[in-house]
This record gives sequence, C-alpha cells and structure tokens, in this order.
Amino acid sequence: MNVLLNIDENSRVPLFRQIRDQLIHLVDTGSLRPGARLPSTRHLAERLSVNRSTVYRAYQELWSLGYLESRPGSYSTVRRRPKVAAATRGPAPGHIDWTKRASPASEALHAAHRREEALLQKASAPGVINFVPLSPDSRLFPMDAFRRCMNHVLRREGPDLLQYGAPLGYRPLRQFIAERMRLHGVSVTVDEIMITTGAQNAIERLLRLLAAPGAPLVCESPTYARAMDIFRLAGVQIVGVPMTEAGMDLDVLEQVIQRHGPALVYTIPNFHNPTGITTDQAHRERLLTICERHRLPLVEDGFEEEMKYFGKTVLPVKSMDHHGVVIYLGTFSKILFPGLRIGWIAADRRCIDRLASIQRTLILSGNLLDQAALHRFCRTGHYDLHVNRMHRIYRRRMQTAIKALRAAFTDGPVHWTEPAGGYTIWLRLHDVAAAEDEIVQRLLEHGVMALPGSFHFHGAADGTYFRLSIAHLDEAAITEGIRRLAAGIEDLYRRPDERNLS
Amino acid sequence: MNVLLNIDENSRVPLFRQIRDQLIHLVDTGSLRPGARLPSTRHLAERLSVNRSTVYRAYQELWSLGYLESRPGSYSTVRRRPKVAAATRGPAPGHIDWTKRASPASEALHAAHRREEALLQKASAPGVINFVPLSPDSRLFPMDAFRRCMNHVLRREGPDLLQYGAPLGYRPLRQFIAERMRLHGVSVTVDEIMITTGAQNAIERLLRLLAAPGAPLVCESPTYARAMDIFRLAGVQIVGVPMTEAGMDLDVLEQVIQRHGPALVYTIPNFHNPTGITTDQAHRERLLTICERHRLPLVEDGFEEEMKYFGKTVLPVKSMDHHGVVIYLGTFSKILFPGLRIGWIAADRRCIDRLASIQRTLILSGNLLDQAALHRFCRTGHYDLHVNRMHRIYRRRMQTAIKALRAAFTDGPVHWTEPAGGYTIWLRLHDVAAAEDEIVQRLLEHGVMALPGSFHFHGAADGTYFRLSIAHLDEAAITEGIRRLAAGIEDLYRRPDERNLS
Repeated sequence: MNVLLNIDENSRVPLFRQIRDQLIHLVDTGSLRPGARLPSTRHLAERLSVNRSTVYRAYQELWSLGYLESRPGSYSTVRRRPKVAAATRGPAPGHIDWTKRASPASEALHAAHRREEALLQKASAPGVINFVPLSPDSRLFPMDAFRRCMNHVLRREGPDLLQYGAPLGYRPLRQFIAERMRLHGVSVTVDEIMITTGAQNAIERLLRLLAAPGAPLVCESPTYARAMDIFRLAGVQIVGVPMTEAGMDLDVLEQVIQRHGPALVYTIPNFHNPTGITTDQAHRERLLTICERHRLPLVEDGFEEEMKYFGKTVLPVKSMDHHGVVIYLGTFSKILFPGLRIGWIAADRRCIDRLASIQRTLILSGNLLDQAALHRFCRTGHYDLHVNRMHRIYRRRMQTAIKALRAAFTDGPVHWTEPAGGYTIWLRLHDVAAAEDEIVQRLLEHGVMALPGSFHFHGAADGTYFRLSIAHLDEAAITEGIRRLAAGIEDLYRRPDERNLS
Repeated sequence: MNVLLNIDENSRVPLFRQIRDQLIHLVDTGSLRPGARLPSTRHLAERLSVNRSTVYRAYQELWSLGYLESRPGSYSTVRRRPKVAAATRGPAPGHIDWTKRASPASEALHAAHRREEALLQKASAPGVINFVPLSPDSRLFPMDAFRRCMNHVLRREGPDLLQYGAPLGYRPLRQFIAERMRLHGVSVTVDEIMITTGAQNAIERLLRLLAAPGAPLVCESPTYARAMDIFRLAGVQIVGVPMTEAGMDLDVLEQVIQRHGPALVYTIPNFHNPTGITTDQAHRERLLTICERHRLPLVEDGFEEEMKYFGKTVLPVKSMDHHGVVIYLGTFSKILFPGLRIGWIAADRRCIDRLASIQRTLILSGNLLDQAALHRFCRTGHYDLHVNRMHRIYRRRMQTAIKALRAAFTDGPVHWTEPAGGYTIWLRLHDVAAAEDEIVQRLLEHGVMALPGSFHFHGAADGTYFRLSIAHLDEAAITEGIRRLAAGIEDLYRRPDERNLS
C-alpha cells in the first residue's frame, strides 16, 4: 500500500503527530480503507527521511486510538471502526426532547436568559455606550505584577498547586482574607473562611447547605438579578422585602419572618445592587438583632466592600456578630480580575465545616494555582496599591456621573441615588407612560443602554427603573453616555404631538 | 498625641502600609483611644523621614476603613468603632444550631465525610503505602512547559482572560477538545462542548438540568463514590444496576428503566471506577440501543479515556450516538494537572445551550486564564508528548502491580481485575470473616492502605472489596505495597489459633 504523506520539518507540530494526523485523515476520508496494509515503519521512515522511532510512535498512537490493527511481526492494517455518528442535527428517531427532559426550573431559566441575551446583544452593539455590565475596567488590570506573581508560585509550588487540593482553598490566601476582614472590623480565623468560585458560587453553596427546595428565603426587593436566578434554579420560594431609602424595610421583614419562617435572609448592605444604597449603623444593628432573635442565618453580601471611596465608613454587619448568625460573602471580582473567579464565605466554623463537605462533593477542590498567585499579589503589596488606584479613579468617575445627571435632569420626573461608592446608580422615571421595552428601544436609538429595572424584581416592579453601571466606562464615556440618556428620556416625556414634529 | 512608629525602609511592605498597620494595631490594642488626635501628616512625615504623601495615603486608608474621623482643615482623630465581635466560640444565646439548620442531605453528607476523613488520615500517615488516592503522580507534571504557556497567554491575552468570560468556556480550548474527541471517534462541534470545573462539576450540572429532587437515576453498582455523593446531595433516588464482568447488567437495566422511569443512566465504560472493567463494543451498542428506545439520556463518564495503554481500543459510546442521546463527560484531571479543574461535557447542542444558562447562573463564567494556558499547552504539542510519556510509565506500573499480585496470591480466595489501562485494580476477598474496619486495621498494621469497597456501593456491598489505585505510586512503592498487602491479607485468613502463635 502506498501512502502519500507530506512532512514539514519546519513546523512546530512534532513529526510523529504530522504523520499520525495525515494517516487519520486518509482513513477518515476513505483513502485508506479498512484492511489496507500500512508500510512498515522502516520503509515509511526511509521514504520520509525521518527516524524510524518517529514512525513507530505515530503507529503506536494510531493503534491506541483504534485506527490500526497490529500483530507482532506482521504489517499493521487499517482497522474497521464502527461508523462514527455525525454531529447531531435536528430531531430524529430516538432523539431526546430536551425541553421536556429539562427540569422545569432550568427550562424557565433558559427561556429567561434567551430574552436577556437578545437585549444584551443590542446593548453591546458598536457605538452604543453601555451602562449595563458590572465588570471592572480591564484597562486598569495590573497585568505585569500579576504575571510575575504567577511565575513565582509556579516555580516555587507548581506541582502542589496543580494537584487536587483542600476543599476550603489555599490556606495562605484564606489567612490573608481573614486579616483583610480584620481591617473591616470583622474578626474571623482562617478556619472560618472558605474560598469559592466567586461570590456567585458562594450563594449557591449556601442554598445547598441551608435551603431545601420549596423552602422560603428572604431577600430585598429589588435585589441582585443573578442571585434570584440561583434561587429560582434551586426551587426555593423567594419572599421579597421592599427597599426604602434606608435599606430593607425592617418592619416588613419582621412580619415576613413570622409568616414564612424562612431558611435565611439575603442582604446587600453596601452599594446595594441595584439601588446603590448603603445602610447605616442603626439599620444594621436592628437587622442583626432580628436575625439573632429568630436564630436565622443572615447572609451579608459584601461584594463591593472594598469600593468605599466617599463619606463615612459603616462596618459590615458581620463585625457586630457575636453569635455566629452572619454569613459573610466576599469577592475579588469587583475590584480585581473577575476572571479568576475568587470569592469567599466567612462564617461560624460549624457552618464552614459543613460547606467544606459540600465543596468536596461538588468540585473535589478549588483551583489552588490562581489562589496562590492572587495571594502573592496581595502579600507583596500590589493589592493595596491597586485598591488605592481604583478608589482614585472611581471616585472621579462617580463624581463625573453624578455631575452629569444633575446637569441633565433638573427638577424633572427623573430621580437617582447618589451612592457613597461602588459602581451603580439607580434611576427612577416617574409618571412615564411607555413600557420598559419601548424605553429600551428609545435609548438604543440614542446610542446608549442601561439595565432595565424589571430584572431586579421577582414579581412586578413598583415603578420604572434603570440601573447605570460605571464599572467599565471612563469619564468621557460616562459624560457622553449620560448626555445621550438624557436626550433619550427627554424624548420619551415629550407629548406625542411634539414628538411628531421632531 | 505622640505615637511611636517604627518604619523599616528595607522591608518589601510599602511604607504607607507599615504606617497604616501600626496605627491599626495601636487602636485595636487600646493604645490609641477613640477621640485621640493624630499628628498632622506634615508632622508625622518629618518625624519618620518619609514623604508627606506617604502619611497622607496611610491616613486615607485608615479613614476609609473607619479608623479615623477627619474634617477638612482639622486634625484627624481616632473614631469610635462599634465593638468588634470575637471569633465565634461555642453555643451562646442567639446562636444557630447548624445541625438543624443544615438540610438533611448536606448533614448526612457531612457525617459521612467525617468518617471518611478519619480513615484517609490514617492512610496518609508517614510510612504507609497508600493505594487510596486517584491523583496522578505530580512528579510527572510538565511544569516548565506549562509555565511558559501561562506566561505566553498572560502576555498576549491577559486582560481579556482575567475579565468575566463566556459561560461555555474558552472557545479555542473547546475547539481543541472537539478535535481531540474526533481522534476517539466522536464527532462533535465546538458548540456541543461546555467546559466545566472538572468532570465532578459536570455531573452536578447535569443533575441540575435533568434530575429534579426525588427523581430516580440509574448508575452501576458499585460506582464512583463521589458521584453518589453528588446524587445524594441533590436528593435524587439512586437505583443501582449490578456490575458483571462485562459491565452493567443490561437485562437488569431494562427492568429498572421499565419500573422507575429514570431521569438518566450514568455509566463508566472505560476502566470503570472502582472495578477497572472496560466494556466491549457489543455491550456498548446494546446499552445505547436501550437508551435510544427509551429516549433516555445516557451519561458516559470517560474520565480516563486517554489512559488506554494495553489491548484493543474500544471507541466511546458517544461515537455511535446518531440521535444525541449520549452526554459525554471528559476531564484532563486524570492525566494532567487536576488542580486546574478542567473537564467538559460534550452533548447535543440543545442540551449544551441549556447547560450554558445553568453555568451562567451558578458561576457567571469559568476561569478562562487556566483554560487558555492549557489550550496553548495542547496546541504546541506538549499534551501529546505528555500522554505518550504517561502511557509508557503507567504501562510499566500496571504491569508491575499485576505481576506482584500474581506472585502474592496464587490459587487463593483473593481475586482481582486486570484492567487494560487507567489506574485502578479491584480486589475481592472471598470467604473472609472479618469486617471491613477490621481489615483496614490489619492493613494499617502492615503499613499499607487501599480504599474499602463499601464506599462504592449505595446499599450493602455484595462482598468484601478493596480498590487499589496506582496513580501516584512508582514501581518500587507498588511492589512493596502489594507485598505488605499480601502479608496483611494472609494474616487475616489464618485461623485464630495460628494467629495467637505468631
């Protein structure tokens, strides 16, 4: 049997692999048919002017992949492989109806995401100033320092970091986090911290631990949209407590606890997503007292704890937690490298011990390499420098946004929150007749987009809202974006006859 | 107010941080009390011989952490912070009873893990040859090549990789996986692949999609212990089908499907964990036909697909899947860098689309940095070289293990499987009176440990088994380990009176 192979000695692809892949191609396309005899390794090596061991290795691989039959002392022949199925196409006999096989919760989620994707795609069209993403500005990432940290840990601890590891995460990073939390007034030990795949994953892990399907669970209304997605997927019952200007309405909370006996209370005390509200000390104390009285786990989502750059600091609820009632969620994702997906849970050790079992069951162990690189980044002072830099930059960006809003909307029906940090501003449009979809359309026409408020409510929204995130926009984009936003909204409030004239 | 600070100019810790941390210490220990006035930035800078902006920065941080009050044009004073709670200790008024708050499924898991940990701790004591871990040998990790790949991708794509990313994972790696699966006879496109946090996480994601709590689910009995942990945590009903020497008993499977109408069938066709059995072509065809007839998702766990180093190759069930019934799980963890936690699901696009919504909900996006580094490692030929090296090494290790077993146990009541690849051997002890715990104890006395078979059964085991994993042991350790194992087991079979004499 003659085979035609072309070997490129200057290619980066190893020779044995070139031989292997070309033979596979010949078999797959039918040029080499089952039963066909391959040249001997010696013969093929001579013809291709390569070392015989190179051909031998290619044949070995072909054999282990099921492409060859070989008997000792004889020629290798092409093996008859079972007919390979083509990539799945439309419905066919025996196919599965995935809409029916999927659990109702996951199917509902999927449908919602498809609608959402259509919107997000429009928002990210070229030329549109996009206030939707809550992703920190990647132009600000301290890449060189991180690369050096990664190199360092790979050289020093590489094999250990790339092996299965502890379910709770890289211990030195847990230690750093414990110390960092001390700066925020929270006293926890390394054994009270578990690293998670971002704060997002932390919420899911807590539901696994605390909330069986069907269990009621309390959150603010509005709240973080993707947290509600997790709640829905887990099949728990969402009970929303309205937000006031001071935070969650605690009178309503007390009634809700009495009536529903929830598995936990989920709250975002700083730069609340989406409203940007930060609760004060008195609100935090009363919230904690309520949960203590009911011995009810209080999940404090501190996702932007490090992004306080105005006004007076209020310490986390966890800082007052003498009874281990508060479960604190933290994350690096809003200040540094969201792609690393590193967040944490800080809670009573008995709670963390149980979470460790869940973590081991669901992922065996976390990614220690990234955790170690981040730890080195933090320990060598880069984290502090970065936080300071972010504060300077975002203080200006938020000031720019607020200034632009004040200039754009004077005494009109548009109101907004003025947060003491973080990335989001919550806009309310009073007395607007248009539906949300129509407003979205109008904003797009003006080359700007913000996140429609309805994403943040479990049921019907109590008004017309939009969330502006300044996380990835510079000052020029913010100014221009708010100018466009104002133009779009102004357009909306004009009477129909005026509109026709324009 | 005089404060005593010591600045070390040769330290790697930035000066502002030294100042900040020392002031925090003074406040926390009560040396600086609330209301105390701090020196002006100018004054302190002079005394410490540092730049005034350094002190200013330290004060800024202290202020943002809530340690200082400051008014424009005036001195900074130490702020009264709410009393910080100490790390949680034992039960106290208002504390939470975590055993009651935890869901029954997670509490049961936690109890089981505690028992398991006690055993594993004994097995990993110094001097014990430990056949328990299924972690590949980290001495064989190709560190330098990987470090270069990591550096390359950090330089070229760093900011993009460290931002939130696509829920399905790094597209070029998905493309590589699709091509690699083609080598194993499976035809899938890049859109039919989702990257997961190891195959472990893939199982969990599939349960989210397909199996509501309480739903029945079929797996082999025995099967992978940690898969059962996931099933239990998800609250699904485990229905085990006994293993024969040829694989899952398909007659029983048909009855079980009729009776229970399960959500899916979970199978490990290659080097089955724990038995090491690989099913043949005919078995695979019939299994697939059964699932097609019932339009039942067949989850094929191909966790050691790449570790075929003896005998004839059998292609994955997925290679025959013309109707999109098979959901294939793959992982890099058993051959390369488990710590990266990179696995994948290959399935019908409609299934993958739905999994993407789940993935986005539960972690937002995966870790693209590690996926990109691994992709570069694969594309530049290092992966092929590594797989070849692993085959050479493990072929010898498995041969060594089988040879040692044959030498140790001749015609006795001990039987074992002789797998065509992978890492595990399944040992059966016939007619043994001792309970598993007692055998464990005896083995430990002989300085050797293997995983007790009971971990792999949902209900009672149908005999006395141990799983030997040679994944992280070299030939010398394997030989000596099996010698000790034989001595321990021999001891066990001796009659009691003989034992007293020894």
